[in-house]
Amino acid sequence: MSVDQWLGNFENALASGDSAAAAELFGEESYWRDLIAFTWNIKTVEGPAGVRDLLEHTDAGAHGFHTTQEPTEADGVTEAWFAFETAVGRGSGILRLIGGKAWTLLTALDELRGFEEPKGPGRPRGVEHGADRDRLSWLERREKEASELGYVEQPYVLIVGGGQGGIALGARLRQLDVPTIIVERNERPGDSWRKRYKSLCLHDPVWYDHLPYIKFPENWPVFSPKDKIGDWLEMYTRVMELNYWGSSTVRSASFDGSEWEVVVDRAGSEVVLRPKQLVLATGMSSQPNQLALPGQDEFLGEQHHSSRHPGPDGYVGKKVVVIGSNNSAHDICAALWEAGVDVTMVQRSSTHIVRSSTLMDIGLSALYSEEAVAAGVTTEKADMIFASLPYAVLPALQIPLYDQMRERDADFYARLEAAGFDLDWGEDGSGLFMKYLRRGSGYYIDVGASELVASGDIKLVNGQVARLTADSVVMEDGRSVPADVIVYATGYKSMNGWAAELISPEVADKVGKVWGLGSDTKKDPGPWEGEQRNMWKPTQQEALWFHGGNLHQSRHYSLYLALQLKARLEGLDTPVYGLQEVHHLG
Amino acid sequence: MSVDQWLGNFENALASGDSAAAAELFGEESYWRDLIAFTWNIKTVEGPAGVRDLLEHTDAGAHGFHTTQEPTEADGVTEAWFAFETAVGRGSGILRLIGGKAWTLLTALDELRGFEEPKGPGRPRGVEHGADRDRLSWLERREKEASELGYVEQPYVLIVGGGQGGIALGARLRQLDVPTIIVERNERPGDSWRKRYKSLCLHDPVWYDHLPYIKFPENWPVFSPKDKIGDWLEMYTRVMELNYWGSSTVRSASFDGSEWEVVVDRAGSEVVLRPKQLVLATGMSSQPNQLALPGQDEFLGEQHHSSRHPGPDGYVGKKVVVIGSNNSAHDICAALWEAGVDVTMVQRSSTHIVRSSTLMDIGLSALYSEEAVAAGVTTEKADMIFASLPYAVLPALQIPLYDQMRERDADFYARLEAAGFDLDWGEDGSGLFMKYLRRGSGYYIDVGASELVASGDIKLVNGQVARLTADSVVMEDGRSVPADVIVYATGYKSMNGWAAELISPEVADKVGKVWGLGSDTKKDPGPWEGEQRNMWKPTQQEALWFHGGNLHQSRHYSLYLALQLKARLEGLDTPVYGLQEVHHLG
Repeated sequence: MSVDQWLGNFENALASGDSAAAAELFGEESYWRDLIAFTWNIKTVEGPAGVRDLLEHTDAGAHGFHTTQEPTEADGVTEAWFAFETAVGRGSGILRLIGGKAWTLLTALDELRGFEEPKGPGRPRGVEHGADRDRLSWLERREKEASELGYVEQPYVLIVGGGQGGIALGARLRQLDVPTIIVERNERPGDSWRKRYKSLCLHDPVWYDHLPYIKFPENWPVFSPKDKIGDWLEMYTRVMELNYWGSSTVRSASFDGSEWEVVVDRAGSEVVLRPKQLVLATGMSSQPNQLALPGQDEFLGEQHHSSRHPGPDGYVGKKVVVIGSNNSAHDICAALWEAGVDVTMVQRSSTHIVRSSTLMDIGLSALYSEEAVAAGVTTEKADMIFASLPYAVLPALQIPLYDQMRERDADFYARLEAAGFDLDWGEDGSGLFMKYLRRGSGYYIDVGASELVASGDIKLVNGQVARLTADSVVMEDGRSVPADVIVYATGYKSMNGWAAELISPEVADKVGKVWGLGSDTKKDPGPWEGEQRNMWKPTQQEALWFHGGNLHQSRHYSLYLALQLKARLEGLDTPVYGLQEVHHLG
Repeated sequence: MSVDQWLGNFENALASGDSAAAAELFGEESYWRDLIAFTWNIKTVEGPAGVRDLLEHTDAGAHGFHTTQEPTEADGVTEAWFAFETAVGRGSGILRLIGGKAWTLLTALDELRGFEEPKGPGRPRGVEHGADRDRLSWLERREKEASELGYVEQPYVLIVGGGQGGIALGARLRQLDVPTIIVERNERPGDSWRKRYKSLCLHDPVWYDHLPYIKFPENWPVFSPKDKIGDWLEMYTRVMELNYWGSSTVRSASFDGSEWEVVVDRAGSEVVLRPKQLVLATGMSSQPNQLALPGQDEFLGEQHHSSRHPGPDGYVGKKVVVIGSNNSAHDICAALWEAGVDVTMVQRSSTHIVRSSTLMDIGLSALYSEEAVAAGVTTEKADMIFASLPYAVLPALQIPLYDQMRERDADFYARLEAAGFDLDWGEDGSGLFMKYLRRGSGYYIDVGASELVASGDIKLVNGQVARLTADSVVMEDGRSVPADVIVYATGYKSMNGWAAELISPEVADKVGKVWGLGSDTKKDPGPWEGEQRNMWKPTQQEALWFHGGNLHQSRHYSLYLALQLKARLEGLDTPVYGLQEVHHLG
């Protein structure tokens, strides 16, 4: 069956309400991923039975399916980009056929009809020509809004957390004319990057990191230094005209069934906000995971979590022990070594390591690279392609890439293992990105520290820490590591922790675990969910949403979260199919 | 002759040094415009004799001419885009053939070999992977540079004036690794826009206004409000990492034959800078043209130049007389009328008026519009096409467009004339853009004020002002116009005035008039120069340069000025062909 025939048959089945006929179009192993176009949810269903269930419980009014470019074929898979309409908007998607039946289908809502973003030919004029005695200048309007929103007028959406996630979502909501305030504990946009250890650079390359609307320029570095990305976020917030409250923290939030009451400390003044929707965009890295160890009170030196690590300059001449072996631990150890500090890394569990250049060449270059851009794979296209690969299929696609990486860098890994470093590749060998999606931790993208570990310049100690003494870290096997300073590079808590802290433990438990796919691997317990738990989609708590992830996810999924919020603001009917169940507390 | 044949013959003639043969390839009426590729100048030569003279006095080593897209033909003119190399760099151009001979030729240097900008595949890494004990973080490097440049290290280039011109040039020089400081009297980048009257919006549309490297996003307004463009310039300066000294003024500058000594007041502290090159980017609108009138001392009300006009809010209930009838006068009058102020415009000479929407549709849409972008005419392509039309040819191309505009808006113009408004279309009917290029004044792009003039809501008085009294403006014909406030919308002085003020009257006279083509029309005296006098190219004062113009010019010509400065920094041989003679003082 050709793509056109398939789309025609699919559309006919939808039109006649024949879910069984539609399901027939899908192969036994098949996946339909929908980004709010049919389900008002971010949802993947599997197999004909899943397709049938989805269609029997939804009524999107989808029609007008047509390809938007010539389908391609490779290795027996026909791939087609298409567009369609629903009762309320316009969508697009990617279909992959094997033997005439759908293997994967992605459907995504792109915009709501009647609420399109003002861009390109529909961009604002900036000034209304003619004479108008009630005219306010742009500045007067901005200043009025900034002074009244949250006081005279209530925001429809309150975003807690003004990192890249909150900023990207805020930008989209601004374009959709959804009154929004972002509250951020730091003073300025970008401070959450600026305040981290001084050697930090993004581990993802620039092509992966664009924000919506304004792309990094051609001369932007591949790996953005933390202060430079901070400046970019600050200027972005300004020119996108976001209502950004810096130096502001949420004291409490509660939902009365129709709106939230959120008590905010805005630079020392209490403001009570009454938004209809509350988004926690506090990030995966904002609540430090504190390690409790016997003897912490007795230790005489300085000890701090990696999130508070200032960089190496103050530690020259001291012995520093870094507990942890993921990204932050490696970055911090390397910077300390570069400053001439005596540094020891304590590895408590196996770690997945991939060299940055290898990851870029093998893992990312097809979608996010200079070559991809040159080949016409825009960021927007790359995001769609990426989204079109169901999470269930991803490991099988990733494993061969990581096999390649292991082979290419065999000497490197041999050196690391010879130095005693405990390596892993994920439980199923699927590598870094699956680890990120499943648990958000457990890896280091090597930008140089691993050679220092291999050479012994960064000393390595394996095992669990038993306790601290006044001047040492004592391991369970009895070894004692002298220490003047201890850095806990022990990661961060789940975003659910913020729901507990800001709202209540009851609401946090009602919502359940945030992040993870249900892969039944370490730190990602089953059952299989097929999507990231609670991210960018409705939760069990009405009007409570979670947003975050890396720059790619903040960019792409902010679109769907923004459209969900806009639809609710405009009173559109948004019946949610397949609202996730809760299997785990935060 | 085909384009390929023409380019082949041209290249052969160059290779054999046969200037006569090269000249033979040009038609009797023909123009070769060179942007620093052959001449290290911005220069147009006319006819075979001009071509021959240029080639006899230059030796660019140009070769490798080849078309970069399929030539097109329309109305007997074949148009071709091509690329070439010179002894020092890579260039591109546009050739137009009529009957096998060149009618117009544009040659432009795009980059210097070995000094390419780090972008795309050559972008910086942002971080050097590996371990390095001498590593400085990005922030440390930026802070070191910011604290040392101008004190420990001297800038190679000093740019006086931090508006869009200075900023665009500064950005290009930063990419070319030319140590540069920008000094600006206002506190923050963008203030030169922010401080103007509050209703001001750009009169040019967004597609015409992009800066280099970072384009306005798709949702940017067509006509940017002044404070919004101010914010954009400020963020641009930050993320492009310019060394921008706000609240800084130049007290004096002198050249000793090898370097400048420039005394700068930086926020109250004196700093002596010793740059090798000095660029005046003070803008066409920075030195108010003050009108001296008898009785100014007797006038009891407030009087100020338009550059200091704060907007209408303080003038409700007063009678305001605005002297002038160009852009600022119209904007200010309309804003006053909108605020309910009694306002009179004094028109002292005829004014060219074009409605903004008509100008966009007829004058700009082929090159700078949403449609042009959709048709593949990028900003960079549009700039090249625009640059490829010799100034001598432009009026003949412009006149029919303005004839169309006059016809389309005939009723509008009839209403204006009926109200007594004195209209013109330029001496030769070539309209707005030629007026801008020739004299930089004499027009209003109508965004609404003209209807208020036509309706009499803005009162109109024609003629010369004789004198002021305590409470009125008295015209030469004896009419008296009551006035509580007078706004002098009387334009600005030539950029040459800054050379006189900052350096010396002698240097200003040595350099001569800045701006204008020598068209021998009002305020643009001959002889014909064929290029804008003294702009973006060498002047009679070694190491002194002028930069500025609208956003389009600041964007495009900053490239050539930046390359000229980079070539000198690197010690390349830069023999200037056709250095302009001085025919007029400032």
